[in-house]
Amino acid sequence: MKIFAYGIREDEQPSLKKWEAAHPDIEVGFTEYTLTADSARLAEGSNGVVTLQTSPYTREALEVLHQLGIKYISIRNVGFDNFKFQDLNDLGFTLTNVPVYSPNAIAEHTVILMGRLLRRVPEFDQKMDNGDFTWAPTIGKEYREQTVGVVGTGHIGRVVIKILQGFGAKVVAYDVFHNPDIKKQGLYVDTLEELYKQSDIITLHVPLFDSNKYMINDEAISQMKDGVYIINCARGELIDTDALIKGLDSGKVGGAGLDVLDDENSVFGKVWSSIDNIPNEKIRNLAKRLNVIVTPHSAFYTETAIHNMITTAFDSNKALIEGEKPDNIVDTNK
Amino acid sequence: MKIFAYGIREDEQPSLKKWEAAHPDIEVGFTEYTLTADSARLAEGSNGVVTLQTSPYTREALEVLHQLGIKYISIRNVGFDNFKFQDLNDLGFTLTNVPVYSPNAIAEHTVILMGRLLRRVPEFDQKMDNGDFTWAPTIGKEYREQTVGVVGTGHIGRVVIKILQGFGAKVVAYDVFHNPDIKKQGLYVDTLEELYKQSDIITLHVPLFDSNKYMINDEAISQMKDGVYIINCARGELIDTDALIKGLDSGKVGGAGLDVLDDENSVFGKVWSSIDNIPNEKIRNLAKRLNVIVTPHSAFYTETAIHNMITTAFDSNKALIEGEKPDNIVDTNK
Ligand SMILES: NC(=O)c1ccc[n+]([C@@H]2O[C@H](COP(=O)([O-])OP(=O)(O)OC[C@H]3O[C@@H](n4cnc5c(N)ncnc54)[C@H](O)[C@@H]3O)[C@@H](O)[C@H]2O)c1
Ligand SMILES: NC(=O)c1ccc[n+]([C@@H]2O[C@H](COP(=O)([O-])OP(=O)(O)OC[C@H]3O[C@@H](n4cnc5c(N)ncnc54)[C@H](O)[C@@H]3O)[C@@H](O)[C@H]2O)c1
Repeated sequence: MKIFAYGIREDEQPSLKKWEAAHPDIEVGFTEYTLTADSARLAEGSNGVVTLQTSPYTREALEVLHQLGIKYISIRNVGFDNFKFQDLNDLGFTLTNVPVYSPNAIAEHTVILMGRLLRRVPEFDQKMDNGDFTWAPTIGKEYREQTVGVVGTGHIGRVVIKILQGFGAKVVAYDVFHNPDIKKQGLYVDTLEELYKQSDIITLHVPLFDSNKYMINDEAISQMKDGVYIINCARGELIDTDALIKGLDSGKVGGAGLDVLDDENSVFGKVWSSIDNIPNEKIRNLAKRLNVIVTPHSAFYTETAIHNMITTAFDSNKALIEGEKPDNIVDTNK
Repeated sequence: MKIFAYGIREDEQPSLKKWEAAHPDIEVGFTEYTLTADSARLAEGSNGVVTLQTSPYTREALEVLHQLGIKYISIRNVGFDNFKFQDLNDLGFTLTNVPVYSPNAIAEHTVILMGRLLRRVPEFDQKMDNGDFTWAPTIGKEYREQTVGVVGTGHIGRVVIKILQGFGAKVVAYDVFHNPDIKKQGLYVDTLEELYKQSDIITLHVPLFDSNKYMINDEAISQMKDGVYIINCARGELIDTDALIKGLDSGKVGGAGLDVLDDENSVFGKVWSSIDNIPNEKIRNLAKRLNVIVTPHSAFYTETAIHNMITTAFDSNKALIEGEKPDNIVDTNK
């Protein structure tokens, strides 16, 4: 049995080598290239491929894999938007994804962002950079004094809640689906408006739908506490960036921690000559504020997450090749 | 009744005003000046004084207070090293301190420092400052995968443990005194050597004694795991800075978070023309590393802590004036 992997980064190689060592009967090949019509030929002789890329998978690339007799594709991430299901179905592919690789990676990043805002870390960093080793008047706040509103109590939101409770923070939560454990703890409020009203910090952990695009808009912000901190490690389009900037300008919003941003693909994942040269004026505006922390969609990026992405993708591909039906098969008939 | 307060900073005024409003029968006066022979006269007509300063209290200043008939001094911090007990006893003063104002302030700062190291925040900050919005290869680690060694399970250490458990980290602890709750949880190891051996992160929460000065020295570091993170939010002299720098140079120590440093008074609390001009070569060396985070003894500096310092000091001073014996009277006969 042979599995060939595309788009393998250096940081993925230790986990890949580990998986290979644990499966001496399986041959593992890999390349740093993404899956294209050209690179697809590298998979010759393989039974399945493991892949990850941020650009669309072309019909041509899939056709080459098909000609090589390959039927199984396992992506190392959650999202399968880069595939046209029609192509997969026409060519008879079975696709698996990694629905959950490490909710903790994102949850921990979320809570660290809160801490950096509460303790005014960007201001302290700037002071120190300038040779200013005083602490006053850069006074901080404590987690335990905060009411944190968690929007979405799925895999990630629930870990965020558990961490915040360790800090002794008060948590209120909102979700269209009520998780039994969170419900038993009495954390749910009935409306987003109620959550906005009570929360010193609001953190988003819901998927993006048409219905919640720009859910954090002028109206939502007007319902929040003065000086609220807003954290988004979910999807950029949940926040109307203009409304956020307006809120920051007026002081209504006290700060923000943003791992995702509307139109982030125009900026993230690339190296610009300087922060002044990034081609999105709003992101530039936000990134330069001392009460805003922007991270480049890196919340997920931990050794544990990468290990789980590699391991689950290879495990799933192996299972498919062996004729099993892993429960992370993507339903391409939807 | 009148209480006069010295060295009041702007960030203390909201809490002071609150205390004043809650005690309409008591007159409160204050100045930003520290307590000197000159400023002491400002306390004329007061029954007690509340004070806080980093420089020694002079005999002359205390003599003026004595002449004004004042008997009660309440400091807003823990340490009373700036007083000569002989002076206080000669002049018949009773002194109170604030033994505990917010263990959480320091504990939260400690855990945030760990998070900033685990997620390589200084490196990410530098990337972003330079216009680099990529995440690879700056991969992070998760708290939940770490074994954290907590040295000292007093007020602060125990809060650190509780927070880390919320993250799902493994905790091992060492203390000469075994706290019943931590003992029941089975967290204690018998020796520091055992703690050093097991820990991915080591954090110090013990007071400084002659016996533990430079406890983190070459030998201790040699007993630690490769790549260990060391956090110190207790007292600077617990760490031999030369040994730490050597450990960082060799890579044995993976990073450090330092709110306190040996000889910090030569640098902290002051504004230098630039970080290159701070007059302590070792602190400069540490502060410029991307895997070291130095904060200027600011772990304690939260609104809650300041509020508690003000409130406890005024409450204690009032109690003394009313002839009570609060349990935070400093034993000046030791
Ligand atoms: N920043 C990153 O690196 C990163 C990485 C992974 C996932 N994410 C994002 O995090 C988000 C949450 O991920 P997860 O794994 O916890 O998902 P999940 O599916 O486990 O949980 C999502 C929760 O949101 C709830 N929900 C759905 N629509 C809602 C609405 N309109 N209002 C309130 N609640 C609603 C669902 O009932 C569910 O409980 C996703 O949007 C995902 O895209 C970000
Ligand atoms: N960075 C800051 O802003 C800041 C602020 C306040 C306190 N601190 C420092 O934090 C430290 C801890 O404060 P706390 O309030 O938790 O104190 P604490 O007195 O409540 O606890 C100290 C603990 O250390 C233990 N201990 C004493 N000597 C020991 C030794 N040699 N080895 C192991 N354990 C030992 C004691 O048994 C006790 O459990 C103190 O040194 C204090 O000076 C720093």
